[in-house]
Amino acid sequence: LQVFSCNSNPVLAREIAEHIGIPLGDAVVGKFSDGEIHVRLNESVRGSDVYVIQSTCHPVNQHLMELLVMVDALKRASARTINVVIPYYGYARQDRKTRARDPITSKLVANLIETAGADRIIAMDLHATQIQGFFDIPVDHLLGVPILSEYFLKRELEDVVVVSPDHGGVIRARKLAERLASPIAIIDKRRPEPNVAEVMNIVGDVKGRRAIIIDDIIDTAGTITLAANALLEYGAKEVYACCTHPVFSGPAIQRIKEANIKEMVVTNTIPLSEEKQLEKMRVLSVAP
Amino acid sequence: LQVFSCNSNPVLAREIAEHIGIPLGDAVVGKFSDGEIHVRLNESVRGSDVYVIQSTCHPVNQHLMELLVMVDALKRASARTINVVIPYYGYARQDRKTRARDPITSKLVANLIETAGADRIIAMDLHATQIQGFFDIPVDHLLGVPILSEYFLKRELEDVVVVSPDHGGVIRARKLAERLASPIAIIDKRRPEPNVAEVMNIVGDVKGRRAIIIDDIIDTAGTITLAANALLEYGAKEVYACCTHPVFSGPAIQRIKEANIKEMVVTNTIPLSEEKQLEKMRVLSVAP
Ligand SMILES: Nc1ncnc2c1ncn2[C@@H]1O[C@H](COP(=O)(O)O)[C@@H](O)[C@H]1O
Ligand SMILES: Nc1ncnc2c1ncn2[C@@H]1O[C@H](COP(=O)(O)O)[C@@H](O)[C@H]1O
Repeated sequence: LQVFSCNSNPVLAREIAEHIGIPLGDAVVGKFSDGEIHVRLNESVRGSDVYVIQSTCHPVNQHLMELLVMVDALKRASARTINVVIPYYGYARQDRKTRARDPITSKLVANLIETAGADRIIAMDLHATQIQGFFDIPVDHLLGVPILSEYFLKRELEDVVVVSPDHGGVIRARKLAERLASPIAIIDKRRPEPNVAEVMNIVGDVKGRRAIIIDDIIDTAGTITLAANALLEYGAKEVYACCTHPVFSGPAIQRIKEANIKEMVVTNTIPLSEEKQLEKMRVLSVAP
Repeated sequence: LQVFSCNSNPVLAREIAEHIGIPLGDAVVGKFSDGEIHVRLNESVRGSDVYVIQSTCHPVNQHLMELLVMVDALKRASARTINVVIPYYGYARQDRKTRARDPITSKLVANLIETAGADRIIAMDLHATQIQGFFDIPVDHLLGVPILSEYFLKRELEDVVVVSPDHGGVIRARKLAERLASPIAIIDKRRPEPNVAEVMNIVGDVKGRRAIIIDDIIDTAGTITLAANALLEYGAKEVYACCTHPVFSGPAIQRIKEANIKEMVVTNTIPLSEEKQLEKMRVLSVAP
């Protein structure tokens, strides 16, 4: 068994290798002067079961290509099996045609990874579980809820209500609520007319409670900050937010800083650069 | 017949569409806040023969992914055939294992483009003609020599010698020399001992002649500037340089500026940003 890392998430890769009790495989994933990626494996992988750890987070196209070139190199170096660990699967939100003539990039990416030569995928909290079906190879689908719930159980918060920021996230919210033995609430966004701002109604009782909003991905943090305000308006005592994948692009950090959110709990499927680490953030490791 | 462009080379794409006498297809190739590419086709392509124009030049991974997502969108929108025009094919230099455990990224890229759904490839001056064989679909391979030779014929230079900067480029140099009815010379790089600078010997007579160095790709321009100096040392009267693909990365522009090169003649398979356009440069269009 060998574990290799590309460049998206070297800290997590080291943690995983440590948990298994082996050193990380010796490989260089670099760039030529013109920006083309090169991969050099400095140890033999012949006949070995190899794990590659790479999130396809920002810059997504570069990280995806690093992964594909690494898999190609491993395949041509006669690895026995190539197991691709993708803690954060980029392009997951382009998983269906929302309009005529849309691409389905999430499926395209699955095809690309298979074409490169992957034998198995290990992913976390895929935006849609249908993405498993985009692959013709086995997909192990891990969930962030156990890690997030463990944290909140340790915090011993009382009067909790778990909140899904939209109807798509209800199943995830229910799983967390079960583990915390708490009720759930759902935010029901409605746009009364085109070009009129959305109205946030809350289904369920949040009055006097500590709300924990859970989502799979927080990207620009627009939804989550509006949801926090709505919850407080409806009488919630405090608002916590958590997610598996902290994409945090564009205005996200500024919004989270200013939002009425007590804690923002995320995992390390996407590494946070130093300037993204706010005081109210807690980062949990998915390595174990 | 419809022609679409991604973002690498919109000027060339427009020129090509003009030559055919049709407007460019209406499509948006943009980015979400987190850097993921999205493609929107604003017109039907059902049953149509579609041409997509995209060089996979810098930033190569982004341009490659734009192309793949575009092809995916066209395929799912029921285009009859998808013909991919790749004026500059990135990763072409990673076309073989130069060391054990190297990837063969050039072949990987061919597989990715086929997987996305391309039916035919039109490429120019592939670094190795073997790359045609990496595809299982038809590849039309166009050459830059006719365009470059046309330019030099119009210049009516006398006493020309065409120079290949290495042994790999002799066939290309011979083709240009034939069209210019001139002799050829070859630069023979030798490294006398490891860690000792290369010595440039010249095979062929350049004394008192105007040397035209021809290459497929000029990247950091190291070879070409050393070659120019060697040619002048061997008595060449003037040095011209030409290539199909002006990658011009890293120190290239500074080197070309300072080099003893009278003219640098390139094509527009890769667009040159304004700060790369030196006075001594001539850019020829491959659109016709
Ligand atoms: N990277 C992205 N950033 C923002 N929106 C996206 C991204 N990828 C897909 N989308 C859009 O998000 C919507 C799907 O999100 P959802 O309804 O949560 O599954 C679709 O309208 C997509 O066009
Ligand atoms: N993008 C690139 N920039 C610089 N060198 C490269 C690049 N891609 C491949 N190479 C190297 O160039 C050599 C092949 O070039 P050539 O011998 O001209 O075919 C190999 O040693 C490659 O590792």
